[in-house]
This record gives sequence, C-alpha cells and structure tokens, in this order.
Amino acid sequence: MADEALFQFLHSEIIQYVNSAESGESENGRCVSKLESMGFRVGQGLIESRHISVCRFTKDTPRFKDELDVMKFICKDFWTSVFKKQIDNLRTNHQGIYVLQDNKFHQLTQLSAGKQYLEHAPKFLAFTCGLVRGALSNLGVKSIVTAEVSVMPACKFQVMIQKM
Amino acid sequence: MADEALFQFLHSEIIQYVNSAESGESENGRCVSKLESMGFRVGQGLIESRHISVCRFTKDTPRFKDELDVMKFICKDFWTSVFKKQIDNLRTNHQGIYVLQDNKFHQLTQLSAGKQYLEHAPKFLAFTCGLVRGALSNLGVKSIVTAEVSVMPACKFQVMIQKM
Repeated sequence: MADEALFQFLHSEIIQYVNSAESGESENGRCVSKLESMGFRVGQGLIESRHISVCRFTKDTPRFKDELDVMKFICKDFWTSVFKKQIDNLRTNHQGIYVLQDNKFHQLTQLSAGKQYLEHAPKFLAFTCGLVRGALSNLGVKSIVTAEVSVMPACKFQVMIQKM
Repeated sequence: MADEALFQFLHSEIIQYVNSAESGESENGRCVSKLESMGFRVGQGLIESRHISVCRFTKDTPRFKDELDVMKFICKDFWTSVFKKQIDNLRTNHQGIYVLQDNKFHQLTQLSAGKQYLEHAPKFLAFTCGLVRGALSNLGVKSIVTAEVSVMPACKFQVMIQKM
C-alpha cells in the first residue's frame, strides 16, 4: 500500500514538475513527450532488473512463445508489479494491434471524473505509455503505444506492434 | 523487488530531468532545492496516506510519546516502506539533533564508489532529505534535514528539530 502511494506521489510530482519546466508554444506536447521518454527508460530498466524474465527470454528456449504471450506478461506480471492490479481486458485483432483496458487506472483516479478534466488526461497517461513501450522494447518487441480515456478512471492503451 | 526497482529508476529519471531542466549559474543549487521540495511533498503525502498512523497520532492518546519516538518511526516503519530496509544507526545529542545512518543507501549504490563521484552525491540525497522533512512535518515535527556521505554507499542524514 505504501509502495503504491510512493509511486503515485512521485508520478504526480513528475507531471507537475515537467509541466512547469517545459514552456513555450508546444508546451503540452513537449511535456507529454518528456514524460513518455521517462516512462520508456523506466520500463526498459524494470525489465532489465527482472533478471529471471530476461534470462529466460533470451535463452534458447524463450520464455514467451509468441507476441501474444509477451502481451499477456505485460497485462499480468508487469502491470501487477507497477500498479498492483492486472489489466482488466486484453483484445487483439491478431494483426499486431492490442488493446489493454484498465477499468480503474490508478494514475487517473487523482483527477476528478468530470468531462472538463479529460483534456488533462494525456499528461497522466504519457508516462505509462512510455513504460509499456520501454518494457516491450526490452522484450524484443518494437511498438507504438497510445492511450485514451472515455469515462474516467477507465482507460485503454493501444499497442501497435512495429514489425522489424 | 520490482517496487524497489520502480522507485530507483523513477528517482534516477527525476534527478536527470531536474538537472537538465534547471539551467543558469546556480544550476546545481536549484536542482538540489527542486529535488528537496519534491521529496518534501512526497513525504507529506506518504504520511497522509498512512491513515492509521496519522489518526493515532492526532487522537487524544498520541501514537508517539515524544520526539525520539517519532524519529524511531522514521528509522523503522517509514524507511522500510520506502527503502525496504531500516536505518542502521540512530544517534541523538538529546538536544534536538538526530543522526540517521544508512550503511548502504540505495540511491547511492548507483554511483560508483570512487571519491571523484562524491561531488554528485548531493543530487542523489536531496530528494530523500525532503522526504524525511516532509514526513516529519506531517507528524508535527518541524526540522532541517541535511545529508553527508563519507564512504559510499554509506550515508548520514542529520535532522535538526526546529522548536516551535
């Protein structure tokens, strides 16, 4: 519980600080992109620090048998280690697009549920988009990750696999 | 283990970002002071989110019987919830100065042990100084917190209680 709070507070501080530090015309875009990059590096680091997963993955007998298996790992193990819950729903078109739905996304629960706050949502999702992209990248899967909110605090992350 | 890694990576990202965002002559000082403020707010938040402690503290029968008792809470419960270990040694002059020694401070283990890196240590300690000051502040104890490193990764935090 305390761990969860630590991440939540740190995440808020980062958003606030990056938001205030990035000034200029394209302020919001730069803020979102900075947060995404930070998330990317943290995601990479988290996978690197999970020696077992990585070793298993890189050994002759890979831990993951295919792309879907990697996505399941992200939805279960990875999500739980960061957000203390699993992704609620995973869908795919079997052509490289995956939609991960979290019905109660922690980083959004800080925002009020009103529609008027929807415009701030990208800042609260950017770090996590990067986190997923970074984790996937270190598991050998190149991707583009975006997020959208329809009714807070539910949230959908769309992962588009980039074929090498 | 993953939680610990998450905090470590986030902490590194914050230091790197704040360091690059704060420019100008007093660059280093501003960076350290920003990190300290961020830590302060996170420390406050962590105590606020630990409802039980706070409630017990503010009820008629306080949870902590004196200042030393608050410091013991910081060294044991608080340190463990953030750094997954206790403070190794707590000393006091019984006149409002407390020295908390951590023989293997996580945030420093990222830096190499050489003397040439000692100059970077303040950036790696500022957030934690703020964290302790914020936690103490929300437990009703006003303080000034500084840190020093002699041999990495051992570290001493000095807490000077400010009498109201």
